[in-house]
Amino acid sequence: MRHFALELEDLHQRLLQMGGLVESVIRKSIRALVDRDTSVAEQVFQDEERINQLEMDIDSMGTRLLALHQPVARDLRFLTAALKINTDLERMGDLAVNITERALSLISVPPIKPLIDIPKMAGAVEQMLLRSLGAFVSGDADQAKLVLVSDDEVDALRDSIYRELVSFMQRDPTTVQSAVDLMFVARDLERIADHATNIAEDVVYLVQGVDIRHRAAESL
Amino acid sequence: MRHFALELEDLHQRLLQMGGLVESVIRKSIRALVDRDTSVAEQVFQDEERINQLEMDIDSMGTRLLALHQPVARDLRFLTAALKINTDLERMGDLAVNITERALSLISVPPIKPLIDIPKMAGAVEQMLLRSLGAFVSGDADQAKLVLVSDDEVDALRDSIYRELVSFMQRDPTTVQSAVDLMFVARDLERIADHATNIAEDVVYLVQGVDIRHRAAESL
Repeated sequence: MRHFALELEDLHQRLLQMGGLVESVIRKSIRALVDRDTSVAEQVFQDEERINQLEMDIDSMGTRLLALHQPVARDLRFLTAALKINTDLERMGDLAVNITERALSLISVPPIKPLIDIPKMAGAVEQMLLRSLGAFVSGDADQAKLVLVSDDEVDALRDSIYRELVSFMQRDPTTVQSAVDLMFVARDLERIADHATNIAEDVVYLVQGVDIRHRAAESL
Repeated sequence: MRHFALELEDLHQRLLQMGGLVESVIRKSIRALVDRDTSVAEQVFQDEERINQLEMDIDSMGTRLLALHQPVARDLRFLTAALKINTDLERMGDLAVNITERALSLISVPPIKPLIDIPKMAGAVEQMLLRSLGAFVSGDADQAKLVLVSDDEVDALRDSIYRELVSFMQRDPTTVQSAVDLMFVARDLERIADHATNIAEDVVYLVQGVDIRHRAAESL
């Protein structure tokens, strides 16, 4: 069983490595957008390949540990949570790639407005990811529940971004393509926040053994 | 072991029930949009609650079977695939709800154009879901690989929908809000297609024991 504990620790470490990498590509994708920097965009595409490789490694490690050992209780919950968190992180990486593609499209034309709310939304989303990973590391269900609450702030920012962009498009048809790109960036950030929420829910399940999905945040 | 086989069969059945329900809400969401029918929209919201409940049931059944029995080889692959497919199906249900919300927003104002490409795209996406579920039922990896190819057709339809809507918005500012809603519908359909692709990949893994994610469709 000593061996099993070491392997679980190894899986834990790799998942955190994956989390750090994903957190970094999200930051880079927003930097590419805000600084109009194509070299940072290039890094995102390279990092994504490492993320995909890491996802497959973690997936096969987790599945092998389920097969070889017969984990129960918390170890079993850890393994199933690890497999789910792995999937969520990989999807977040995909979304950072989407944002970067929109950034490249936006860089190719003059800016329609200074970006204020999108970096703000990105900051809030990053906080959610960092907090959900922190809760996973420390096994802290209360910290995980804080993530679920921040989701409302992110949704409010998204709504205000949408409203502003719609009014831009209505006033000036030449802004349509760029405004659409920016709307999709906001949408992708919202989805990254959703994945951070999924991770936080998995942490609560891992720590407390209860499934809190599909429950209103207030009732937690 | 007889008991275990029965429980696996039960899980299989429930997953198919979930698949049928998700397939039906996707169809209803598009019907609400095309027929401008708010009563169909209402059904989607009701069905989604059943989908959420079913997801939690399947998740806890699958996790319990992993814990109580010590499945290996194909049974283990089946259980891990079932848990992943369950997550993908639930997300598809969420996306059908998103489409329905956009439909309600669109119904509240006069139509900007007859919908042709969106129902066509929805039909292609539905085919992908049906095919991936069929491949799961019959354990047919070749059928699953067909799903991966159809993804290109869906992407092409999405691009043509985007182009048309952008030109609408550029020509007539009064169409902006509705065109944005329709773009997000196309985006949600694209994501449903992505989840169908995930299911197809899980079926290939289940049948052949190889992980084909992150590989180009041509190399399969």
